[in-house]
Amino acid sequence: MTKTLIPRIPPTQTVVRMMRRPVGPVVPGVDLVPSTEPTPDPAQLQPGEVLLHRLYLSLDPAMRGWMRDIPSYIPPVKVGAVMRGGTVCEVVHSRHEQFQTGDLVLDNSMKEGWNEFAVIAGKYCRKLPPLGHHQTISMTSYLSVLGITGLTAYFGLLQVGKPKAGETVLVSAAAGATGSVVCQIAKHVVGCKVVGIAGGRDKCRWLLEEAGCDAAIDYKLAQNPSQFQKQLRDALKKVSSRGVDVFFDNVGGYILNETLRRLNVKGRVVVCGAISAYNEDPRSTNIVAPTNYTALIPLRAKMEGFIVTDYAKQFKEARKNMAQWIEEGKLTFKEDIREGLERAPEHLQALFSGGNTGKLIVKIGDPITQHTTTGPALSKL
Amino acid sequence: MTKTLIPRIPPTQTVVRMMRRPVGPVVPGVDLVPSTEPTPDPAQLQPGEVLLHRLYLSLDPAMRGWMRDIPSYIPPVKVGAVMRGGTVCEVVHSRHEQFQTGDLVLDNSMKEGWNEFAVIAGKYCRKLPPLGHHQTISMTSYLSVLGITGLTAYFGLLQVGKPKAGETVLVSAAAGATGSVVCQIAKHVVGCKVVGIAGGRDKCRWLLEEAGCDAAIDYKLAQNPSQFQKQLRDALKKVSSRGVDVFFDNVGGYILNETLRRLNVKGRVVVCGAISAYNEDPRSTNIVAPTNYTALIPLRAKMEGFIVTDYAKQFKEARKNMAQWIEEGKLTFKEDIREGLERAPEHLQALFSGGNTGKLIVKIGDPITQHTTTGPALSKL
Repeated sequence: MTKTLIPRIPPTQTVVRMMRRPVGPVVPGVDLVPSTEPTPDPAQLQPGEVLLHRLYLSLDPAMRGWMRDIPSYIPPVKVGAVMRGGTVCEVVHSRHEQFQTGDLVLDNSMKEGWNEFAVIAGKYCRKLPPLGHHQTISMTSYLSVLGITGLTAYFGLLQVGKPKAGETVLVSAAAGATGSVVCQIAKHVVGCKVVGIAGGRDKCRWLLEEAGCDAAIDYKLAQNPSQFQKQLRDALKKVSSRGVDVFFDNVGGYILNETLRRLNVKGRVVVCGAISAYNEDPRSTNIVAPTNYTALIPLRAKMEGFIVTDYAKQFKEARKNMAQWIEEGKLTFKEDIREGLERAPEHLQALFSGGNTGKLIVKIGDPITQHTTTGPALSKL
Repeated sequence: MTKTLIPRIPPTQTVVRMMRRPVGPVVPGVDLVPSTEPTPDPAQLQPGEVLLHRLYLSLDPAMRGWMRDIPSYIPPVKVGAVMRGGTVCEVVHSRHEQFQTGDLVLDNSMKEGWNEFAVIAGKYCRKLPPLGHHQTISMTSYLSVLGITGLTAYFGLLQVGKPKAGETVLVSAAAGATGSVVCQIAKHVVGCKVVGIAGGRDKCRWLLEEAGCDAAIDYKLAQNPSQFQKQLRDALKKVSSRGVDVFFDNVGGYILNETLRRLNVKGRVVVCGAISAYNEDPRSTNIVAPTNYTALIPLRAKMEGFIVTDYAKQFKEARKNMAQWIEEGKLTFKEDIREGLERAPEHLQALFSGGNTGKLIVKIGDPITQHTTTGPALSKL
């Protein structure tokens, strides 16, 4: 271990702050505002702290929830604060014994994220396992398939949905970062029949050809809920299923409401997200609510929410399993990497319009340390 | 065992048929129509059959569901058919070896019910345990606290809601036949804090004084959902609870929607019924749907439906436990017994207007056999 020099850091950086709580969709430049601010001074670091240079920022639907002034599993982002997000970073300078300059880490602090440089308590950081160990695993994998996105798919499906081989799994936003992992684990690991719902012909083709789906529903072809109901009936017929055993729902709205009528007895709805409603006022009449929830009674079915961080103690094992499935060809994934933190507010909108294909990630910058280093191999975890 | 004579039965009887599928609320005389029809001829009985004289008919919210043309856990009542209901009957004549004239039985066939006399396969009948064994247990107890109504409370609370001592249980329609049993089991058996919701000052007083509630909410005092939300907050404060651990919901509508915002982490909504919506068209905009279901995500909470007959194998044990709780003074119950099958269609409406106090039962007639007999004691079951 040679002592590394502290790299020179620029005097200013790009920072994106939440300057107004969005009402409907996020307005770039009004709700999320980029600005140029001074970088932290490495000489001011306190014991136990690290100075991070962020390399990649994960963009997630949950971000819209963090911007609401509603008590939740983590406090809302404060007006005027740096926007929160998950990042892969390099350690530029460290006063924490477990880290040194050049270390690649995940910042799990859930404080800030939309800034180039930040001072964080080292205890919130986790070293990345070596990259390239599995051919397709890179730095960004820890924000996508091996990050919160993929872990959400893993635990939501396996621990909440609990599908059995031969059961029918329906997935909404199936071509999305989480949905596509759900489809593949359900198909190739558990041995389920899988129906994916996505918007557009290209996404549906990808579901059938790459993501392990036995049938795909292009919801954009439905003009109204009853046409979607017919699509759903047809797709279930195609895979010889009477109904849905597990519905992994990222979307909500009429897709959830219609699916409630197609659950099998003892069906399970994994309530992962409701992206159709995230930009709506909760009192808006635009939201199609699950009126059909009373179907849960005759079907002895349930709807259950979850938060992936509750399973943090099992993350290592999950990452190891998923890395193995990637190696075995059971799990593929797509990333949609966009340049420039200052444009991140615009990129975020793609999540809500279906404009991204695969996990949406913003590249903040290239490493500035001479040699980046990683932690122990996944298989050693 | 002395051979009993077949009692003389009248040539005609009152029968209530469903002559039209109700659209909104049931219209007596149009949807449910009483008429005079011939009684079955005892001489026509086939081997294995029994001729029943019905004594008491249970009126239940589920009846509105059976009248809908929607596939459910049992087939809908057919237009023109005798309306379905649970009854206590005496055996008038038997060609089934386990039954003889004078036996008091529950007819579990789920065929017919709203008629004075019926021919039923004996295999669907269950002998009543001896009456008066516990002072307060009578024939009608097997339609109320020891019937489907009470069993629904027992299994819904204990097997679906799974409350722990010290947790907070909220019950809607708490002064109703099922709700009041839920409150008392939660309070006196499990040791929970119990908040009951009912309509009117008298019902709320009864909840506090008799049904084991620590706080009561008179929902009729709320003019809108946000006033109910305030009532709920105040009631929770009164019992020093941060939120609701188990919500046993018989009502749906805005009461469910507002409660979703007050669940504790890992909260459970037992979806037992939705009486606020039973008379509405499922597409009606009058139904307040659970828009707030997304609160399930940050709260890791669930909503789960159930059907009490799934627990049929545990009914004996449940009845034995509940009879013991009655004896120990932990469980009281009210019955609202009304006269005359021909007026049952009107009595049914009371369930949906909150006009009944306690389990609604229709007395069809007095026994016509010389000596009624019962089966083995509950404690021997």
